[in-house]
Amino acid sequence: MIFSKTNFSMMMNSRTRSLADGLLRGDRSSLSRSITLVESTLSSHCAEANALLEYVLGAKGGRTDSFRLGVAGPPGAGKSTFIESLGKKLCKDQGKRVAVIAVDPSSSRTGGSILGDKTRMTELAKEPLAYVRPSPTRGTLGGLAQHTNDVILLCEASGYEIIIVETVGLGQSEVMVDETVDMLLLLTPPAAGDELQAVKKGIMEVADMVVVNKADGDLVNAARHAATDYMHALQLMRRKHPSWRPRVKMCSSLHNQKIDEVWGVVDKFRTAMKDELVERRRLQNLRWMWSQFKEQLVAVAKEDPGVIRTAHQMETELLQGKSTPRIAAASLVQHFLENRK
Amino acid sequence: MIFSKTNFSMMMNSRTRSLADGLLRGDRSSLSRSITLVESTLSSHCAEANALLEYVLGAKGGRTDSFRLGVAGPPGAGKSTFIESLGKKLCKDQGKRVAVIAVDPSSSRTGGSILGDKTRMTELAKEPLAYVRPSPTRGTLGGLAQHTNDVILLCEASGYEIIIVETVGLGQSEVMVDETVDMLLLLTPPAAGDELQAVKKGIMEVADMVVVNKADGDLVNAARHAATDYMHALQLMRRKHPSWRPRVKMCSSLHNQKIDEVWGVVDKFRTAMKDELVERRRLQNLRWMWSQFKEQLVAVAKEDPGVIRTAHQMETELLQGKSTPRIAAASLVQHFLENRK
Repeated sequence: MIFSKTNFSMMMNSRTRSLADGLLRGDRSSLSRSITLVESTLSSHCAEANALLEYVLGAKGGRTDSFRLGVAGPPGAGKSTFIESLGKKLCKDQGKRVAVIAVDPSSSRTGGSILGDKTRMTELAKEPLAYVRPSPTRGTLGGLAQHTNDVILLCEASGYEIIIVETVGLGQSEVMVDETVDMLLLLTPPAAGDELQAVKKGIMEVADMVVVNKADGDLVNAARHAATDYMHALQLMRRKHPSWRPRVKMCSSLHNQKIDEVWGVVDKFRTAMKDELVERRRLQNLRWMWSQFKEQLVAVAKEDPGVIRTAHQMETELLQGKSTPRIAAASLVQHFLENRK
Repeated sequence: MIFSKTNFSMMMNSRTRSLADGLLRGDRSSLSRSITLVESTLSSHCAEANALLEYVLGAKGGRTDSFRLGVAGPPGAGKSTFIESLGKKLCKDQGKRVAVIAVDPSSSRTGGSILGDKTRMTELAKEPLAYVRPSPTRGTLGGLAQHTNDVILLCEASGYEIIIVETVGLGQSEVMVDETVDMLLLLTPPAAGDELQAVKKGIMEVADMVVVNKADGDLVNAARHAATDYMHALQLMRRKHPSWRPRVKMCSSLHNQKIDEVWGVVDKFRTAMKDELVERRRLQNLRWMWSQFKEQLVAVAKEDPGVIRTAHQMETELLQGKSTPRIAAASLVQHFLENRK
């Protein structure tokens, strides 16, 4: 059998079809239910999700006029307030449709959420032009970030022009988010210069812009110091893009101050990086294709009866010290591939 | 063809055979070259590495009398000095053979090393009973951690009884290291209580013991405060093991003070956890088997001519916005599995 791309959407059931049509019309509840479908890890949902994605993509084509902004920062930086302030401005002053998605690197042991309260940004969520997607609470960071890619596509297909992806920047998640967005903004509290010494380097390397938040009241001086610190640090770093020099700005999300200036820099970035962003998205897509390939292939393999049988046998050998995980894995791979011949 | 486990060592060439024999005799240079072979990502080296591992394991059996101690901590905690001080004590006072392995979560963009200087612990390295393996500088965190598992086995087969695995604790690497060791020790500088606010939770969740280092001179009071902080924090956390309550200790690696007390707690852990550690290693082995399975299966698939051909085609469709990474990946998986029938 020769496999053709259109297989997926041909298999779509009528419920998914009407979901997709709702989404394309810009209906928020259809968008929400589509995202839930795409994020599902049930294998029966997977085929439907593929069908939905393909149908939606066929109807809209690949949009390149959207802009994807990542906002990373430590807990306490004021990310929610900043995004709410920025989002409201974009909706009200510029008439833009804005979608906000959260990627939460949940605690590996407890599964607890770091981003906290799931019903945030209540004011922005009330804007007719805005869509706020609460953060999922389960799953691995890798898995969530993979879905983020599809969630962005769904939001774009539903008419959203600015997609804001929020994450806690603690060393890994912001790198993953950077691989799904056009621009990464690092938001920090005024004192972050010292506090984040240890994690700073990794985050700074991927930041296109640093914004020192809470530059109001007693913290104005601290914010100025932090901004100078970041400016110096950025000067010492290797540039991420040849045509963009990362900028540092201060703002007060609480008082809606200088949010315009921050957006001004984002606009400058879009202009300066116009051509590079096309290539950047191409490379991001390729990277996600291979990453998804890995997940999907392993999911199929783990359901293979031969693999399951051999795994039991290997478990005994591992327990008796007769094998190592690496050798046991090699046996499993060989079994899987032999059985399919 | 029915695949049998002994395939690997039957295919071993004479060079690898003499390497393995040297390693089993406790020869340090053979151990070093064996580790290099096992860490290699060249597919031609992979089969040899499997053969070596299997041969060595067949000769020695699975050792359960070794102890694997992970040491994680932020940059500046004094990990090298601590491990050197502890290692020398174990060699000289207890006549133990000690191996030190470093897992370095290199910066994702620049590939730069966080653990820094690769020729450290010069004094410990001079001990006849010690073996210090400098940290590799390339590769992903996941890949390195996977190899760590095999490196530990090689060190054990070469006669080392205490294996110390060192890593920078920045939120991800210590969790991975925790999955390869029996006990995880978090080493912190006296002021870490505040500095590490943001990353503390993740690390604390997997720590079996917290050691506040640099408890000497002017820092004694700060160390005492930090220790109290950690003690309170640990009381609020869910226990990692039912039969072990995480302890907090202070020491001065520089002045070799209270290192004995730290080791006393490690000994207590070994006694209290005796039975649980067998089950723990079994679960660790299973987890690494599936993780290795994933890596190895994807490596085979990526070399498949059909997959390579289809990937080029998918690349074009992605570029034209006719597909998404997820759908393109599904096509690749289907192609790979169809072609093997």
